[in-house]
Amino acid sequence: MRYSKLLIPTVKEVPAEAEIASHQLMIRAGLIRKLASGTYTYLPLGWRSLLKIIAIIRQEMDAAGAQEVALPILQPMELWSATGRDVVFREILCHFKDRHGRENVLAPTAEEVITDLVAHHVSSYKQLPINLYQINYKFRDEYRPQYGVIRSREFLMKDAYSFDATAEGLDESYRKMYQAYCRIFARCGLKYVVVQADSGGMGGTDTEEFMAPCEVGDTLVMSDDGSYAANLDKAEVDPPARLELDGVGGIGPMKEVHTPNVGTIEAVCSFLKTKPAEMIKTLVYAADGQTVLALVRGDHEVNPAKLSRAAGGAELALASPEVITRLTGAAVGFAGPQGLAEKVQKLVIDHSVAAMPAGISGANKTDYHMLNVVPGRDFPLAGPNVTVADIRNAVPGDTWGGKKLVFSHGVEIGHVFKLGTKYSQQLGATFLDEKGQSRPCIMGCYGIGVNRILAMAIESGHDANGCILPPSIAPFEILVVPINVGSGAVMDTAVRLHDELAAAGVDVLLDDRDERPGVKFKDADLIGFPLRITVGERGLKEGKVELKRRTDEKPALVPLEAAVAEARRLLADMWPKA
Amino acid sequence: MRYSKLLIPTVKEVPAEAEIASHQLMIRAGLIRKLASGTYTYLPLGWRSLLKIIAIIRQEMDAAGAQEVALPILQPMELWSATGRDVVFREILCHFKDRHGRENVLAPTAEEVITDLVAHHVSSYKQLPINLYQINYKFRDEYRPQYGVIRSREFLMKDAYSFDATAEGLDESYRKMYQAYCRIFARCGLKYVVVQADSGGMGGTDTEEFMAPCEVGDTLVMSDDGSYAANLDKAEVDPPARLELDGVGGIGPMKEVHTPNVGTIEAVCSFLKTKPAEMIKTLVYAADGQTVLALVRGDHEVNPAKLSRAAGGAELALASPEVITRLTGAAVGFAGPQGLAEKVQKLVIDHSVAAMPAGISGANKTDYHMLNVVPGRDFPLAGPNVTVADIRNAVPGDTWGGKKLVFSHGVEIGHVFKLGTKYSQQLGATFLDEKGQSRPCIMGCYGIGVNRILAMAIESGHDANGCILPPSIAPFEILVVPINVGSGAVMDTAVRLHDELAAAGVDVLLDDRDERPGVKFKDADLIGFPLRITVGERGLKEGKVELKRRTDEKPALVPLEAAVAEARRLLADMWPKA
Repeated sequence: MRYSKLLIPTVKEVPAEAEIASHQLMIRAGLIRKLASGTYTYLPLGWRSLLKIIAIIRQEMDAAGAQEVALPILQPMELWSATGRDVVFREILCHFKDRHGRENVLAPTAEEVITDLVAHHVSSYKQLPINLYQINYKFRDEYRPQYGVIRSREFLMKDAYSFDATAEGLDESYRKMYQAYCRIFARCGLKYVVVQADSGGMGGTDTEEFMAPCEVGDTLVMSDDGSYAANLDKAEVDPPARLELDGVGGIGPMKEVHTPNVGTIEAVCSFLKTKPAEMIKTLVYAADGQTVLALVRGDHEVNPAKLSRAAGGAELALASPEVITRLTGAAVGFAGPQGLAEKVQKLVIDHSVAAMPAGISGANKTDYHMLNVVPGRDFPLAGPNVTVADIRNAVPGDTWGGKKLVFSHGVEIGHVFKLGTKYSQQLGATFLDEKGQSRPCIMGCYGIGVNRILAMAIESGHDANGCILPPSIAPFEILVVPINVGSGAVMDTAVRLHDELAAAGVDVLLDDRDERPGVKFKDADLIGFPLRITVGERGLKEGKVELKRRTDEKPALVPLEAAVAEARRLLADMWPKA
Repeated sequence: MRYSKLLIPTVKEVPAEAEIASHQLMIRAGLIRKLASGTYTYLPLGWRSLLKIIAIIRQEMDAAGAQEVALPILQPMELWSATGRDVVFREILCHFKDRHGRENVLAPTAEEVITDLVAHHVSSYKQLPINLYQINYKFRDEYRPQYGVIRSREFLMKDAYSFDATAEGLDESYRKMYQAYCRIFARCGLKYVVVQADSGGMGGTDTEEFMAPCEVGDTLVMSDDGSYAANLDKAEVDPPARLELDGVGGIGPMKEVHTPNVGTIEAVCSFLKTKPAEMIKTLVYAADGQTVLALVRGDHEVNPAKLSRAAGGAELALASPEVITRLTGAAVGFAGPQGLAEKVQKLVIDHSVAAMPAGISGANKTDYHMLNVVPGRDFPLAGPNVTVADIRNAVPGDTWGGKKLVFSHGVEIGHVFKLGTKYSQQLGATFLDEKGQSRPCIMGCYGIGVNRILAMAIESGHDANGCILPPSIAPFEILVVPINVGSGAVMDTAVRLHDELAAAGVDVLLDDRDERPGVKFKDADLIGFPLRITVGERGLKEGKVELKRRTDEKPALVPLEAAVAEARRLLADMWPKA
């Protein structure tokens, strides 16, 4: 293929709105172009890469025994109402009324559609297990699309759904997908870690996320020996040793203090000359008409997912100021656990609070705090509606299983999920087992963010000059650069090398542009061709051409007759192994 | 691959709502499943076929020098307003307001997006010609989705857009696409005719449609020697010889007759004892504040596209009853050309009317008609605002160039279109030519309905037992059927044949189900595997297996050791040639 025939609009300037390297480089290398907020056109080079990624995914999914289908993008809202996810997903659902007044949802995911399909076409255990997947567009009405294709409103997702007759079957389906994902990401040359995750609003039990390192991504928590990894919603921490008091608090009787004009924990601490770790933060949540009181130390943050699990799984939201004031009798910001345990349906105490000898809390009285609030004395640590649990975000200094926790950031590229029977029960995807008994299919679901694979490959594969892509997903594997297209000998040799490589099945591009070598080399580095072969008059006089891997400092001179073989050897060497 | 592992929900019953063979068979063979009105899930077998069709399209588009891209499905409404197509397409546009209040259009086509792209990235004649294509989902809010995937609300389209510096360049780009389309449809084994079409609301000049024969499709008009083919909006007819009068009319003075309670042409004819061919139908159209009067014979129908071209290209709509009454002074149904020519901006007379010695028209007076209305005497046949042209639908009996016109029906599977500079001018897709002058790119656009290829292949390739698909697009090329899966010898042989064929690169499926042979053969015929190899105990005793093409009445016995070679020979023979 000829460079001059392709639309490759490389850009020198760093696009103003692009905050991270992959976003900047995908635009600068002419891989994508923004159409509107959160929507991108894939230009010829970017789309070539994406097609290679799609082919890898398809091969590995097929090899794992999954069957490809194509589900409609337009989904009837009725199906979403049937599972209640019209409410759960409401904010991010793109939807419209058609001319007959029917609400159409633009697929953000497809559990409902696929379960409805299986409900109609699977009736016997003999048809199980089954794993159906598609590679298709998904839509989310993101509040703030960001980081280029990483958080966009329209994206390509590989979504797979397994249906099993038994829990062991699901374990096996899950394991196959997990292994397929490892192979897919490895073949794309991606770095990643697998972290335990929270099952959240999806229902289900086990779930793991494949995360690619990226500084603007989610927080990841790992033990320093690498034996444990989880995201912030899942990461557990050891309960702390009992805290020694060195602030103003003590274990004497509770004592009200006037704390006017102090709005934040820091302001209270400064006013009372204590520190956040000696304060008890009291948060009021509402869920299904119930009120839940959550206590964490002043230096900690409640993790809503962990709190929700500790509180029995309900979706929780912070209570309104009216509810808080009705409960505490005070303005927001002055709640304390003392005397409230009986007034709420649930009291959930972070185990760091339970370990405090005493703490300072709000006094349930506007502009007052309470000193010497002693857990177990002034509020219960046990009882039918009391739970002590790990409900806060892990922080530096925490341990789990005695091992120090370390923190990093990553972007989700894949997700495997044991769903269980939530959707199959709701939508009637049942089968008759060997005894003729009707049972719901046991489901798993498995997602890959296709666009993110390319973005994250660039995020961890780039330098100051541009992208560094593995040959498995680079737009072309080799770029042949004739230094001077006006020289017949140079051009003839370049064309011959191109043709020989192409005949050998190598994906090769010839930079036939009448441009200065500097321009061509800059574009080559920016786009990130894994291997560059440069043909110049000087080298040709010695019967040699230059070979340079994208990561090489300098090119190597290679005899012309050995160039194709050597190029293929280097390429094979660079090819990521599964 | 094993039949038992695939989701293949074949159905005996003909689905009630499916009116045509392809729709019935795609559901019965387990290729698709309806999710909602006009949206279909492609099940594993249907999607396999579609992926093969997509691969053929991709190969031929790439070979023709087009570059693949992926344009967003979500398009900003602003781009549609910029070309005025928000109004033209209004009825069929699927669109929604996102959370920030921006209107998003779900792509029904992509002229605006691609022209905007080229406007930003192409600036010199050196970058031209360029041809960008995608294979992507399109959406139309159809009033009545019909015939399965043939008229659906969501469908896969291959859309390509060429940009040239010169008219000759466009001719060449158009020719390349035309030839690529011929190859694509031939490789898919499709029957088709190419007809001249109307450029309609798209702007532009030459346009041709690739039509596959289908009884419920659009009307196609061809000369009986096959040298001319057009759709109804384009098909021209010779002006008729001067009509002999044999009804009540004459060329005497105009004469009003009272015609109470006659609503239709037929009723008037019956009342006046004449025939529709002796009547002049007078229709009032409105366009951009102008009034256009159209005259056709009583036995003819105005073709709005032909009328629009004759009237200068404006979009025309039938005038409201108020406008008609204001113009004629009579109720709707009693308009006549006499005395109205001066009152309208345009009078367009079908040449069949111009050839009438005299006719009967409305009297511009409620409940009255006028006899002896003589063209040229009682209304003008020439003048600054008068056009005599071919503005009616062709009908049996018509000729063109003296050749008899014959009629058939077809469904559009492809469309090639010389767009010209309409979009490039509106959206600023200009380039500097060799002299440094800015000029708009000259565009072409080229569409293929991907889903329709499969539907039309089945429409023209089926019998009472099911689909008859060519191996190039069948879900599998060969089905191996062991008669009795319980027999070790039979099953071993079937597996070995399957494996040998698979190793030879043949797309082969093994029907490993424990079902009666009759069930397996019925499914095989229903799905339409091009070739079936049957392995049974009786045959094996003689060292033979059965080979049966889908179209063979009876299987042929072939020595086991020759089976693979013979199967491949038969397959190659059935493979459609481009």
